[in-house]
Amino acid sequence: MKLECFQPIRVFKIRGAYNKISQLSSKNIVAVSSGNHGMAVAYSSRLLGKKCTVILPETAVQEKVNTIIEYGAEAIKYGKYTTDRDAKAKEIVSKTGATLVHPFNDPDIIAGQGTCGLEIANQLDDFDSVIVPVGGAGLISGISIAIKSLKPEAKVYGVEPQGAPKLQAALKAGKIVTFDSPKSIADGLIPSAVGELTLEACRRHVDGVCSVSDDEILEAMKLLVREAHIFPEPSGAAPAAVLLANKDLDRLGEKVVLVISGGNVSLDLLVKTIIG
Amino acid sequence: MKLECFQPIRVFKIRGAYNKISQLSSKNIVAVSSGNHGMAVAYSSRLLGKKCTVILPETAVQEKVNTIIEYGAEAIKYGKYTTDRDAKAKEIVSKTGATLVHPFNDPDIIAGQGTCGLEIANQLDDFDSVIVPVGGAGLISGISIAIKSLKPEAKVYGVEPQGAPKLQAALKAGKIVTFDSPKSIADGLIPSAVGELTLEACRRHVDGVCSVSDDEILEAMKLLVREAHIFPEPSGAAPAAVLLANKDLDRLGEKVVLVISGGNVSLDLLVKTIIG
Repeated sequence: MKLECFQPIRVFKIRGAYNKISQLSSKNIVAVSSGNHGMAVAYSSRLLGKKCTVILPETAVQEKVNTIIEYGAEAIKYGKYTTDRDAKAKEIVSKTGATLVHPFNDPDIIAGQGTCGLEIANQLDDFDSVIVPVGGAGLISGISIAIKSLKPEAKVYGVEPQGAPKLQAALKAGKIVTFDSPKSIADGLIPSAVGELTLEACRRHVDGVCSVSDDEILEAMKLLVREAHIFPEPSGAAPAAVLLANKDLDRLGEKVVLVISGGNVSLDLLVKTIIG
Repeated sequence: MKLECFQPIRVFKIRGAYNKISQLSSKNIVAVSSGNHGMAVAYSSRLLGKKCTVILPETAVQEKVNTIIEYGAEAIKYGKYTTDRDAKAKEIVSKTGATLVHPFNDPDIIAGQGTCGLEIANQLDDFDSVIVPVGGAGLISGISIAIKSLKPEAKVYGVEPQGAPKLQAALKAGKIVTFDSPKSIADGLIPSAVGELTLEACRRHVDGVCSVSDDEILEAMKLLVREAHIFPEPSGAAPAAVLLANKDLDRLGEKVVLVISGGNVSLDLLVKTIIG
């Protein structure tokens, strides 16, 4: 298991956000996010001495808003729909000259996430395959580019929630497919679509993608908490769900790397997972 | 934090047990233990192809007995008192030629535990002090010998439960002091006394020892679970309790290493810790 739940902000997204922001001359950074991406941009901006604004949904839970503020960013609750917040972000960018940091469809974000793949290839002498959770597909894009460069015989597989099979649909259609109301307990894996850049990277480098149900994710969380003593968020438990539910993927092999992408899970859900 | 809770058997004791048993020509191994030491000896014996017998108290919880059996050892529940089990162990040794592995008062056990100190010195560029939980004092003996060899300017401190200040009493008296009924929630830290070898190592290399209460340990567990997302057993949380309760230790310095010695905590206690 590659334990991204022990990153400083408990999720892999600091890799891409830090890499992106460290290359910007702009002193002002903007992100649209209701969760991990906003935290990553806020935290990286502070480390790099930048001013950061994160635009969150009106319905964002106060806990996440507080974390973003704690990381030194301004948090703006705005609008019900992503399109509202995208418009607000553009307004801030045109008024202040700030740079908008996209959560996945950006070469520097993908390269940053790819360091996770570099580490896997460098830390392990031998492995047959890697299973990676897929939201906007930034993480699997970066990891698959890294793995296929350093260890081309290893397979890279993606896992999506059943309620949001964005990458599988896009790979099949040969173009972006947008889901109107993707739903899953894995709240890090439900953007409405993958990006043009991430789709292209996955088309070239990813060996297969499968889906898991919320129940399968919860079963995997339970096992990881109880037996491995780690705290995965639902998105981070999805790769373990692939193994537990015995999903049909070609040639996983004997030595399988699970990318436990994050651990921003509420203690309530965690306790329910342990007891339930 | 040095996270020994992620060792294969979730506790540092595999270091010493494996080192000891790997140097024995005897094919039969015996240990007297109600917990982590028994697991370490059973697990190491299996890895090294030895036959292992662990003698546990009649009152041992079935969960621990099962783990020891799962690791391939024979588990014998025998007697109410440690002296009963020590006699039983001697009987097995004289009948079968088996070798009895002591939990701490043995140079090879101490050397094995010392690898934890070697790793701390090698993994960290800089640190001022290390805080180590003290049961029989095997771990702190090994760590302090290693640290004082590689980085003599760093301080090594011990922490004991208030109900079992064996090392503090022995250092003060200049000889072993035995506690009749040591009590603490930290069940890894309540042997009745330290050993001759460990007392001598601590006298030479340890800079100070303090006590923490069970409540202080529980507060530390809570913080570690909730904020650091790790599962320490009460013994493993004791070094964090030293910091939280602001215990009086000379020159802890800015960079303090906490040895989180183990994570064999029941999920019941863990849930209580999170909720409580």
